[in-house]
Amino acid sequence: MEMSDETTLLTPAALLTYWQGHRDLTRRVIEAFPEEGFRTHHAPDMRPFQAMACELAGMVEYQLDWFRRGRPHWDEADQNRVVPGRAELLAWWDKLTAELDAEVPRVSAETWLTPGDTPFGKMSPLTSVLYLMDNEIHHRGQGYVYLRELGVTPPAFYERSGLPPMG
Amino acid sequence: MEMSDETTLLTPAALLTYWQGHRDLTRRVIEAFPEEGFRTHHAPDMRPFQAMACELAGMVEYQLDWFRRGRPHWDEADQNRVVPGRAELLAWWDKLTAELDAEVPRVSAETWLTPGDTPFGKMSPLTSVLYLMDNEIHHRGQGYVYLRELGVTPPAFYERSGLPPMG
Repeated sequence: MEMSDETTLLTPAALLTYWQGHRDLTRRVIEAFPEEGFRTHHAPDMRPFQAMACELAGMVEYQLDWFRRGRPHWDEADQNRVVPGRAELLAWWDKLTAELDAEVPRVSAETWLTPGDTPFGKMSPLTSVLYLMDNEIHHRGQGYVYLRELGVTPPAFYERSGLPPMG
Repeated sequence: MEMSDETTLLTPAALLTYWQGHRDLTRRVIEAFPEEGFRTHHAPDMRPFQAMACELAGMVEYQLDWFRRGRPHWDEADQNRVVPGRAELLAWWDKLTAELDAEVPRVSAETWLTPGDTPFGKMSPLTSVLYLMDNEIHHRGQGYVYLRELGVTPPAFYERSGLPPMG
């Protein structure tokens, strides 16, 4: 059987499609929340989904900034902004979606795989983006529990652009 | 700026490392549960973490079987088995970890990217593995909420083999 360590499994274009598919599902989860529960419902020692979703958008903003500068830059002050209300957050979300579509295809091969010093350790943009996606799926899964606790049926996890139809 | 659609972002070896890093974190989440809460605690219309973790192991079993046969095969009867207790589940988990380490490096480049007909749609093993990882992160995130509701501090999300040290 052929050894395949050098096989290309994922291209930047495929990664972007996959990422945006996740972001679209998360957007629908944000929309599924009742207004009040979005702001206030949380498990003990955890945040409401509003704060989590704001973190997710903030990390995309950080990653876009990295792509544009060619190096990571983290300003804690950017993260301490007032958590936006849902309408504002959704508008921000959509702005980031368009910016990712415009920016990611322009990222050079060298940039994708060149480690940079971040406050979270030395890592490449690829590792950073995979981590951002993991973090989004993780918190979105928590949002699913919150929705159930609020009596709302969440969007199907497997209905995601970039995936074959499932279920 | 260079267009990079053909850049290799992820090799099978890197994917395996990433996957096993997630599976190791999930294993620690399983261990963090109190015995009773693992079996019984759940949100409305959701399953206890025991049932979710059993699903996760079952899907790895299915994926290993696909790699071995060279085509996907789903037997619903395999999924209806009695949900194993924690000790049995952890032993199964470890067995799968070793089997993945042995089997994945032998998967041919052609196999990785050749779509097969599954009960969940036509997809390649790559898409299937990415979906399995997403599904694991999703349910593990739900396990984090359950742990907090049971008064337990979960393992740090960002402490994962295959990632730079963070936090």
